[in-house]
Amino acid sequence: MEFDTIAAISTPMGEGAIAIVRLSGNEAIPIADKLFRSVSGKKLAEMSSHTIHYGHIIDPKSGQVAEEVMISLMKGPKTFTKEDVVEINCHGGLVSVNRVLQLVLNSGARLAEPGEFTKRAFLNGRIDLSQAEAVIDLIRAKTDRAMNVALGQMEGRLSKLIRRLRQEILEILAHIEVNIDYPEYDDVEEMTHTMLLPKAHYVREELNKLLQTSQQGKILREGLSTVIVGRPNVGKSSLLNSLVQENKAIVTDIPGTTRDVIEEYVNVRGVPLRLLDTAGIRETEDIVERIGVERSRQVLKEADLILLVLNYSDQLTKEDENLFEAVNGMDVIVIVNKTDLPQQIDMNRVKELAKDHRVVTTSLLEDRGVDELEEAIAALFFAGSIEAKDATYVSNTRHIALLNQSSRAIEEAIEGVKIGTPIDIVQIDLTRTWELLGEIIGDSVHESLIDQLFSQFCLGK
Amino acid sequence: MEFDTIAAISTPMGEGAIAIVRLSGNEAIPIADKLFRSVSGKKLAEMSSHTIHYGHIIDPKSGQVAEEVMISLMKGPKTFTKEDVVEINCHGGLVSVNRVLQLVLNSGARLAEPGEFTKRAFLNGRIDLSQAEAVIDLIRAKTDRAMNVALGQMEGRLSKLIRRLRQEILEILAHIEVNIDYPEYDDVEEMTHTMLLPKAHYVREELNKLLQTSQQGKILREGLSTVIVGRPNVGKSSLLNSLVQENKAIVTDIPGTTRDVIEEYVNVRGVPLRLLDTAGIRETEDIVERIGVERSRQVLKEADLILLVLNYSDQLTKEDENLFEAVNGMDVIVIVNKTDLPQQIDMNRVKELAKDHRVVTTSLLEDRGVDELEEAIAALFFAGSIEAKDATYVSNTRHIALLNQSSRAIEEAIEGVKIGTPIDIVQIDLTRTWELLGEIIGDSVHESLIDQLFSQFCLGK
Repeated sequence: MEFDTIAAISTPMGEGAIAIVRLSGNEAIPIADKLFRSVSGKKLAEMSSHTIHYGHIIDPKSGQVAEEVMISLMKGPKTFTKEDVVEINCHGGLVSVNRVLQLVLNSGARLAEPGEFTKRAFLNGRIDLSQAEAVIDLIRAKTDRAMNVALGQMEGRLSKLIRRLRQEILEILAHIEVNIDYPEYDDVEEMTHTMLLPKAHYVREELNKLLQTSQQGKILREGLSTVIVGRPNVGKSSLLNSLVQENKAIVTDIPGTTRDVIEEYVNVRGVPLRLLDTAGIRETEDIVERIGVERSRQVLKEADLILLVLNYSDQLTKEDENLFEAVNGMDVIVIVNKTDLPQQIDMNRVKELAKDHRVVTTSLLEDRGVDELEEAIAALFFAGSIEAKDATYVSNTRHIALLNQSSRAIEEAIEGVKIGTPIDIVQIDLTRTWELLGEIIGDSVHESLIDQLFSQFCLGK
Repeated sequence: MEFDTIAAISTPMGEGAIAIVRLSGNEAIPIADKLFRSVSGKKLAEMSSHTIHYGHIIDPKSGQVAEEVMISLMKGPKTFTKEDVVEINCHGGLVSVNRVLQLVLNSGARLAEPGEFTKRAFLNGRIDLSQAEAVIDLIRAKTDRAMNVALGQMEGRLSKLIRRLRQEILEILAHIEVNIDYPEYDDVEEMTHTMLLPKAHYVREELNKLLQTSQQGKILREGLSTVIVGRPNVGKSSLLNSLVQENKAIVTDIPGTTRDVIEEYVNVRGVPLRLLDTAGIRETEDIVERIGVERSRQVLKEADLILLVLNYSDQLTKEDENLFEAVNGMDVIVIVNKTDLPQQIDMNRVKELAKDHRVVTTSLLEDRGVDELEEAIAALFFAGSIEAKDATYVSNTRHIALLNQSSRAIEEAIEGVKIGTPIDIVQIDLTRTWELLGEIIGDSVHESLIDQLFSQFCLGK
């Protein structure tokens, strides 16, 4: 396909050492050549692809040096967009990079829309839609695992699986087509049962397997929302600190990263926890009292995991019992803390209240029981199974919805065959399954959806 | 010189399309080779300099793909630091870039200190100290002009001038040396007067010319602090809007730039104005009342330019007269606004109060008089002279201080000669001038100063 040439600032806004203006399109190199004066005096058009050139951006109107730059020249189709790409590497700083962008726009490029570079990679057929969506996930990833899920998806792991399933459906459809086109062969029904059903079952099973990963996939992507609850002074703060300190925060603490945004993510034996209202706990040591019962229940409802903390050296109170009631039906780990002090709590009653939830005793003060707690968290998440390293996870809400619809459509096809529905009706269900799966990888999607998907991107990607 | 290999994230922190981990040093390429798997299978060490390579960063421990990257390979000495430089171009996003940095650090690189890349460029002799300082200015530049001043300084314009002046002093010193070493020639005094004085005068003049640019240089760098004052409802908001709208904000308004930080910079006929307390004016339409007399005077004191607004359709009040008193001795332009309404103001009294300040009548409502106001601002700043396009400006406080000291030292040398001070005393003053100038370009500076200077940089530069 042929498009106009787009340009945008591809680095985050702010003061930094490097800022990049990226161009893509047929005119990318001629436009850059209008502005760039290389030290060698050569034009970019004469240079080989995938080379770097030092020189200056000259304002064509004034003839003055506008910026000192390094230019990365990448000729299509071996580029991110499959088009010619020029990256102008400026000194960081807003004025500098804005000035270069302005000159590029004045020289014939159009300001790119958010996500338009990735959109071109999709429209030019370098990646499919699910791979493009993984690019956003990769940028937004808050945890290591989330990034791995996104990387796997970007490399086409999900796409490959979806394509294989579509191929299966296509083969069934082809067989049906043959049978419909040659009605003189009247073994249609036999074919349907002997061939169609096993294949359809296979597709349904694969879809359901994939859907089973969606819960884990979403958690890997977003982190397991975790709330620590308990009466004042039972050790919620200590628990938080212990989890944060023992488990290196996933995003390494490097000067310049905004600490308060990321520090609530911790990695417990491979399970990413997103500790909710962390700041609240730190500040007041009492989330339950502070936010009131109503708000508190709301937070609890949204959580994937509740860490309910009790005081070993105190008797159970009405408040404790209320907490158990509030977290009824949720994933809970009960932590009985302060085993370094004399026992006052009735452990039998605790176990009774905990029902089948795991109960862990700890002395956070003496650093005892934390291992067991972490093991309990990991066990709860992985449900006993060890996570396959190369598993394909579905984590994107759009994909999950489409997989659910596909699963229902293939189910209907199977039911149809079983109750003897005419084969051309079954065919419709199968075709719908095939189309729904196609939407995941972008083989059959509306332009408006594509526009909407890419508009979620940041500028310059 | 030989240093260890350093690494840092060189793009601003935040979600963006591209994030870069930069390495510099002898081990930059071997370290990158430990982690990088190119699609071609070749090692970076085998590749030519200034080339770009697509591939993956592999975690050596797990053997898993850690990120999809483009690597820019630049072999020394034709690099920013004169050392081998590798830039790992990742997908934007904190986790991604932190992960790559972590792997690089685990593979033998050390986390760079702020400014350490530029410091190496200095220590390895690619740029001098004033050029290195210009790099910070370039990044921090808030206006186009500021960026031009920084660019000129970075290209060595100031350095060249300083070197020439040092050379002059060195020649005088050499002559004196000859005369002291061969006292049998007793025409020392004659030499001193005929040769030394003109040369010293020349150096002094050049230094003073440079110092004269410092006021403009600082304004170009920081913008002319401008305060709009006046009673409520005289049209301060309209004036602000008119200045902002008529004069395209210097930093182009591109989605994603933080508007409220930069929008107070406007470019009036080449003069960068930094409009102080802009938000205050917008919000309350009354800066004077809101912040109280004390605070108001403080703001006024810090301003380079006062725009004092009066109401043409109202009589002068005690408040107006107080304002004139408050801005006594400052650079003021008096604006009599609302000429679209019937005159009530006593213009003779206004002119009397304004003394030799320029008085401009406007109707901001009807867009009249704004041209004259802008012309008045430009005239005040450029003091009638048209700014030379290629002028060398001194804008850095450290440089200004050193130039002032140099100017005094050469003055003392001149005075010494005039009153017949022994030539070896004069020699001391000349040597001091030479050394002080050397500090500007970093020829004679303490290591602690260097450390302190570079610590102002952002990480990764």
